[in-house]
Amino acid sequence: MSEKNVATAARQASTLGEEIVSRINRLAAISETPDNLTRIFLSPEHRVAADLLMTWMVDAGMSAHLDAIGNVCGRYEGERPGLPCLMLGSHYDTVRDAGRWDGPLGLITAISCVADLHRRGRRFPFAIEVTGFADEEGVRFASTLLGSRAVAGTFNERVLASRDSAGISMREALVQFGLDPDHIGAAARVRSELLAYVELHIEQGPVLEAKGLPVGVVSAIAGATRLAARLTGMAGHAGTVPMELRRDALAGTAEMITKIEELCLTDGRGLVGTVGYIHAMPGATNVIPGQVHFTIDLRAPTDTHRNRAVTDIVRQIEAIAKRRKLELRLDVTHENRTVPCEPWLKTQVAEAVAAEGYPVFELPSGAGHDGMAMVDIADVAMIFVRCRGGISHHPDEHVEVGDADAGARVLLRLIENFRPRQAGE
Amino acid sequence: MSEKNVATAARQASTLGEEIVSRINRLAAISETPDNLTRIFLSPEHRVAADLLMTWMVDAGMSAHLDAIGNVCGRYEGERPGLPCLMLGSHYDTVRDAGRWDGPLGLITAISCVADLHRRGRRFPFAIEVTGFADEEGVRFASTLLGSRAVAGTFNERVLASRDSAGISMREALVQFGLDPDHIGAAARVRSELLAYVELHIEQGPVLEAKGLPVGVVSAIAGATRLAARLTGMAGHAGTVPMELRRDALAGTAEMITKIEELCLTDGRGLVGTVGYIHAMPGATNVIPGQVHFTIDLRAPTDTHRNRAVTDIVRQIEAIAKRRKLELRLDVTHENRTVPCEPWLKTQVAEAVAAEGYPVFELPSGAGHDGMAMVDIADVAMIFVRCRGGISHHPDEHVEVGDADAGARVLLRLIENFRPRQAGE
Repeated sequence: MSEKNVATAARQASTLGEEIVSRINRLAAISETPDNLTRIFLSPEHRVAADLLMTWMVDAGMSAHLDAIGNVCGRYEGERPGLPCLMLGSHYDTVRDAGRWDGPLGLITAISCVADLHRRGRRFPFAIEVTGFADEEGVRFASTLLGSRAVAGTFNERVLASRDSAGISMREALVQFGLDPDHIGAAARVRSELLAYVELHIEQGPVLEAKGLPVGVVSAIAGATRLAARLTGMAGHAGTVPMELRRDALAGTAEMITKIEELCLTDGRGLVGTVGYIHAMPGATNVIPGQVHFTIDLRAPTDTHRNRAVTDIVRQIEAIAKRRKLELRLDVTHENRTVPCEPWLKTQVAEAVAAEGYPVFELPSGAGHDGMAMVDIADVAMIFVRCRGGISHHPDEHVEVGDADAGARVLLRLIENFRPRQAGE
Repeated sequence: MSEKNVATAARQASTLGEEIVSRINRLAAISETPDNLTRIFLSPEHRVAADLLMTWMVDAGMSAHLDAIGNVCGRYEGERPGLPCLMLGSHYDTVRDAGRWDGPLGLITAISCVADLHRRGRRFPFAIEVTGFADEEGVRFASTLLGSRAVAGTFNERVLASRDSAGISMREALVQFGLDPDHIGAAARVRSELLAYVELHIEQGPVLEAKGLPVGVVSAIAGATRLAARLTGMAGHAGTVPMELRRDALAGTAEMITKIEELCLTDGRGLVGTVGYIHAMPGATNVIPGQVHFTIDLRAPTDTHRNRAVTDIVRQIEAIAKRRKLELRLDVTHENRTVPCEPWLKTQVAEAVAAEGYPVFELPSGAGHDGMAMVDIADVAMIFVRCRGGISHHPDEHVEVGDADAGARVLLRLIENFRPRQAGE
């Protein structure tokens, strides 16, 4: 980088970073509850947020509209109208009692980057689109990635009949929001319209912080397998059943949890396993647990790796159950394939990171993102921004303004240097 | 035993056993709920049961009255009025959805034994008292052994102010039952009135069944220490926090449960440890548990043994917490000392068992019993009767009529051969 370029980059970053943080805070003020941040799909506040985002898009020189599922869609034309686009985006719904950065950081950064290009009159041989996905978290209707699935043309119309906890169907909620549920198909895009999909997002984990890096290049969005386990032994009096005559379902579960942890710890290639939910019955201090329900969540950077780990873990915990004379039932309750970030696109992200003066560090995304749906119509890449303590889905979620700057500079650099996929890439 | 005696014993046992099972079934029909057995302290059904028990006592040649806490007190005078007594007894309250044998078997067997002696006109140089303790289980007011504590003079008057789940105080409930809460002190007996306290009870465990024995001699009522543990780590996203950066409170708890089980299994001298309650927070499939609450129940045949085990286990789980960078808080929530059965009295129980033709087998009681309170005013012994599968506190609780016979014959033999403690015993 020339000295002049360094100075320009620094000035831009400072401006962009401050603008982004200011907008993050304005958007976070739009909440269903005054004391914490909750902005659920198709709520009145969700609509207010969509309108604010569209205002910012128009200010950034984009056309903006809501599509039929409630995605906020901005388009910044290229050197001539109607060119295929580089699509940027993230989601603008939140979990309950959320942090303000999960979703909005990527969306607002993209808008601010376009605004910067617009101020400088930059146009490219491709359009730029910015999509604010309406529902990534899936809090209201227990079905995630609704916005990006609509764009990818994989929206399942059956979920329109599902109802929220108040008994309102998704169909009714869309109408209340001002949308036509019979036109969701119109939100779908086709592969020829998209050159790539790139999403910037907070890491939601502690790796970049541990490495001392503001940004990272995502290698893949890790797939996940979730299992529900039910382990049955024999309940009994805590005082009267000798240890050797027990069939203690919780002691068996404890051995299984320890085994799962050990297998993941010794894997050394990114496998993570979590038992997050456990319920021991009858659950009294003085009764040996006769049955335990628990969950297992397994993720790895590739599907092969994860599937092998699932097989291995199932085999090992079945052996524990057999040895302890416990009856084990296992059900797969959820399975997401791994979405690898495309090498040609990931290389351009890495070049942008390096051009901004940061070490290039690759890490997988353990959390799910809209790219998991977008991969059906576009090559996908992601940029991670460091968040404090790895904390997410919590009011303490935090990004330093300098790191928001860094993310914006990398994204801007990526856009300015973007080259569509070449034959053979 | 002469041949005549054998024949007489067999005829008595058959008669007694059938009478006992018939009365067990009649008493079990007195329940607050029609489909299961629930007879809680001071409920209307508890009162109906008390009246039935007093009828049986009077039929057996005893005087009978309710004391101020609701204990059913029967007295069969000795060769002359006012002699010190051999006290027999057990409780007539139940847990919710109870079995019919836990408590009533000992009480009804004692009444039937006295009835048999009365039919035969037998009087001894001591009186026999049969006490049906009003509340051993402690279901209603979360305070156990209320009946036997009143008799032992150790009733804590402060519990009169405690309230049940409907908001009724124990004081109010006693008045509704027809008792005067200000006279509970009058229920107290003194040591000089009692020669011994002997209780027959179902084992509530699987040991006699595993040994193929209908009856056993209790060596001691094992003391218990209960601990409440709170283990705090750091919650996090199941996908984004690498294994080596986790402070998973549930993985830590699992290691602790496995360690507790291992220490008890390798003890080889009757130590039992149970983690019966566990609660992991936040408890979501895709969130690493940040905090876990769990309980530890530890019992051993002697206080020294149990206290050493508590120290050992605390030390070991503290080490696990430290290594995993988890914060451990441990509170002792309950502690009962071990009540050894007095050798002189236990010897007489063993002699009665042998005289009835059974192998003498000693085992500790892991469950608590009214003897734990009675020990403050009397030497204590217990006779265990086999129950099917070791199941108790459950509708499947079951005793074969032949085993009820066996228990009655042993108790009757003990009474007939009873010799008060001699100097030097």
